[in-house]
Amino acid sequence: MLTTDSPAHPGREEIELAAVLHALSDPVRLLMVRGLAGDADGRSCSSFDVPVTKSTCTHHFKVLREAGVIHQRQEGTRRVNTLREEDLEARFPGLLATILQAAEGEPQLTAAT
Amino acid sequence: MLTTDSPAHPGREEIELAAVLHALSDPVRLLMVRGLAGDADGRSCSSFDVPVTKSTCTHHFKVLREAGVIHQRQEGTRRVNTLREEDLEARFPGLLATILQAAEGEPQLTAAT
Repeated sequence: MLTTDSPAHPGREEIELAAVLHALSDPVRLLMVRGLAGDADGRSCSSFDVPVTKSTCTHHFKVLREAGVIHQRQEGTRRVNTLREEDLEARFPGLLATILQAAEGEPQLTAAT
Repeated sequence: MLTTDSPAHPGREEIELAAVLHALSDPVRLLMVRGLAGDADGRSCSSFDVPVTKSTCTHHFKVLREAGVIHQRQEGTRRVNTLREEDLEARFPGLLATILQAAEGEPQLTAAT
């Protein structure tokens, strides 16, 4: 497996609450984060059935990465996304779990067909 | 006390997670919400020492009201703001408390002098 340089990520202590809340304040990004929760292997942009173009999907993942919500690594031509659950839990205990729980009662975006 | 019509507020069931997170994703708004927490009587815009103009303050409160985070009532010339803690707790259990707790570790905005 070819692994090239990963894009920049904020360190754990650099993660800011306002940035995390902003990153999670978009319904599509929230859906992506729900899809990543509990998936330690990570997922690529194309594995998500979200009603947005690939470039918009890429943009959303960039917002999540820059806020410290996800980690992105390059594997060949794929960019694989994982949730930074440990970092978020250490920085803001209970926050991600509470938001994911709150999101469960929200309307789901339907899969793009 | 003269009480005129209040501005429009979403009903409890109309409060959306993404809107709440967006409303709380601004450091000034987060500071305002922290100031309102536990203050049942409510506070007016001018009672906050935040480094923004009055019109910006008014805008921030409008965003919070439209998201369902605060209630605004008119008392004479004052618009008094209270946190919709019960509604938020019923809609998204633990969310507000977790975010307020996370905010405690964040840098405080300094009071405007």
